[in-house]
Amino acid sequence: MRGIYLDYQSACPVDPRVNEFASRYLTEEFGNPSALHSVGIAARTAVEEARAKVAELINAEDSSTIIFTGSATEANNIAIHGTAARNANQGKKVLASAIEHISVLNPMKYLQKVGFQLSLVPVGSFGIIDLAALENMLSPDTILTSVIYASPEIGTIEPIGEVSRIVHEKGKYLHVDATQAAGKIPVDVQKDGIDLLTISSNDLYGPQGAGALYIKPGVRTQPVIFGGGQERGLRPSTENLFALAGFGEAARLTKLEMDAESERLRQIRDMLIGEILKIEESYLTGHPIRRLPNNASFRFSRIEGESILLTLDAMFNIQVSTGSACSSKTLEPSHVLLAIGLKHVEAHGSMVMTLGKYNTADQVPVVADAVKKTVERLRSLSPL
Amino acid sequence: MRGIYLDYQSACPVDPRVNEFASRYLTEEFGNPSALHSVGIAARTAVEEARAKVAELINAEDSSTIIFTGSATEANNIAIHGTAARNANQGKKVLASAIEHISVLNPMKYLQKVGFQLSLVPVGSFGIIDLAALENMLSPDTILTSVIYASPEIGTIEPIGEVSRIVHEKGKYLHVDATQAAGKIPVDVQKDGIDLLTISSNDLYGPQGAGALYIKPGVRTQPVIFGGGQERGLRPSTENLFALAGFGEAARLTKLEMDAESERLRQIRDMLIGEILKIEESYLTGHPIRRLPNNASFRFSRIEGESILLTLDAMFNIQVSTGSACSSKTLEPSHVLLAIGLKHVEAHGSMVMTLGKYNTADQVPVVADAVKKTVERLRSLSPL
Repeated sequence: MRGIYLDYQSACPVDPRVNEFASRYLTEEFGNPSALHSVGIAARTAVEEARAKVAELINAEDSSTIIFTGSATEANNIAIHGTAARNANQGKKVLASAIEHISVLNPMKYLQKVGFQLSLVPVGSFGIIDLAALENMLSPDTILTSVIYASPEIGTIEPIGEVSRIVHEKGKYLHVDATQAAGKIPVDVQKDGIDLLTISSNDLYGPQGAGALYIKPGVRTQPVIFGGGQERGLRPSTENLFALAGFGEAARLTKLEMDAESERLRQIRDMLIGEILKIEESYLTGHPIRRLPNNASFRFSRIEGESILLTLDAMFNIQVSTGSACSSKTLEPSHVLLAIGLKHVEAHGSMVMTLGKYNTADQVPVVADAVKKTVERLRSLSPL
Repeated sequence: MRGIYLDYQSACPVDPRVNEFASRYLTEEFGNPSALHSVGIAARTAVEEARAKVAELINAEDSSTIIFTGSATEANNIAIHGTAARNANQGKKVLASAIEHISVLNPMKYLQKVGFQLSLVPVGSFGIIDLAALENMLSPDTILTSVIYASPEIGTIEPIGEVSRIVHEKGKYLHVDATQAAGKIPVDVQKDGIDLLTISSNDLYGPQGAGALYIKPGVRTQPVIFGGGQERGLRPSTENLFALAGFGEAARLTKLEMDAESERLRQIRDMLIGEILKIEESYLTGHPIRRLPNNASFRFSRIEGESILLTLDAMFNIQVSTGSACSSKTLEPSHVLLAIGLKHVEAHGSMVMTLGKYNTADQVPVVADAVKKTVERLRSLSPL
């Protein structure tokens, strides 16, 4: 790894211990879990062990509630498109918070095209969902509500327990995208009252190419792609043994180490926020307290986030983001920043730092100094 | 690897050279290709290099014709569901050969549910598609025809060039599932006249979790899952860098080594077929000549293929299959074997051996002897 990487929300390195554990499934124990012979059975055992480890991380009832997918995006699609289609006979209304990831918003918009009625629940200026609005928008034919556990862009953690209580008083199913939250804060599907929950392997320092969808017992959904009977028919494709075994091991390590690691990151992150807010006309975005321990998101007036990103990278070898990497190629300002009430010009000045395993406290002054110099430099060039 | 593995159609080990090449993308160069900083750009470069290597293997016009997916199943779903949905205004008829893989047949059956008219094109007793029937079944509103390049179960290679000519005289698009064929026989999308083609990484000894869909320039399709803009919006999800880089390297090595390796396997395979056909009431399934060089598929009268598989595994540490691993958990006989005209009881006696990198000529007598003993033993126990 080069320089100081502060973009763990967009991609994480695989934990060397995970790699060590899972690499046997690439070249040695490479069977197809559907094959009936011993090599297949060994592969099936590896997948089921991984499933149990993932179930434990989120305190699922048992491992049969976990469906492995090829990505969090795919899990979100099954949760949203699959569940709405399967339960359309009970209603055609769906809700999502205004700050969902595009892998939730876009399947929701697809549902709109095929006859569902989508409404977006507003959030306050810190990004917390408006619970009164949620309550008003729900009706008995609201078959699915999707609320992100915590935003990768502004770090805000949603009050999922309260959301669940409100959704289940009037509506049907609650889906929660916990891609960023899982592994950083405790996620407990039973305590939180969640019907469907998405998590991702790579966000736990597991291999890319694996996600999981928790489906509470009794919740009905259906596949969005079709083929073999793998994953109860909900995600056909030969299982990616390396990625799934690694996902499981990453979940196990995360469960053991999360409390300490999150506390470590929170301290570094708080120092970083303190230093960066010393810069003139810099502002924290998202909730000051209820936020992911590794997230430090800001906006700076009179400059573009993209210019900050490029300058920090080129001149200081520091990698940050301006929002979600998945939408980083568009010129539109982030829908999340608009949803918390920022003007377009304000939203364009955003910079997101997400910390991870390889960040240390001694990087804080280096990063803060680089950001300060970058902001000053860009402002001196800015016509505004 | 333990024993003698003869089930390469269900899963392949990753080539150590591929692993060596791609493993850097797990722990070191792990960026998100959508990120705008240098770590993201390096990742994007790796993905584009992989795309070019895959394009070369199938002689695609250029690398922009290649869409990476998470699996061959997913590529088949985009090719079938996505393409039919996108072109439904031009017709609602779709065709598939009767011996397609279930990841083609099941999306086709889904299309039937949503208003398309599906017909299955019959095959002859060797598994070759009935070209006269194909011609008769085609009409101007046949928007999509899907024909497998070569069957994993019976090895038969279809006359794709002729299929293409016939399809394009009357119908619109031809999709070809080349998951088993690519890397074993030359596949040339331009020479063969293919509009959409599916291949898989693992079948080239690349990592699992990666497939590709070739889309001829001008062919219109649409995604089946929704999210970010990756892969021209056709396959949203953060790219699986390790799997894609490995897929590319596997494609490159395959292109270099395929001719020699296929000839090597063909010789071993022919010896194996010769030995096994000495067993009483044993029959080759599929075409005697036009077949994949690594495929040896048989049926034995009066015994069950599953019993052969389990006995070879338990007593001789030899791994074979009875057909497609993806449907191996059902008790139904293979639809492929029924399509070539076998009776149910005959189809139940099938055994499929698929050879690969680690098979050698000196395994032939060992395997042949084990099969002979297994068949004799099972027949002595059989009430038939």
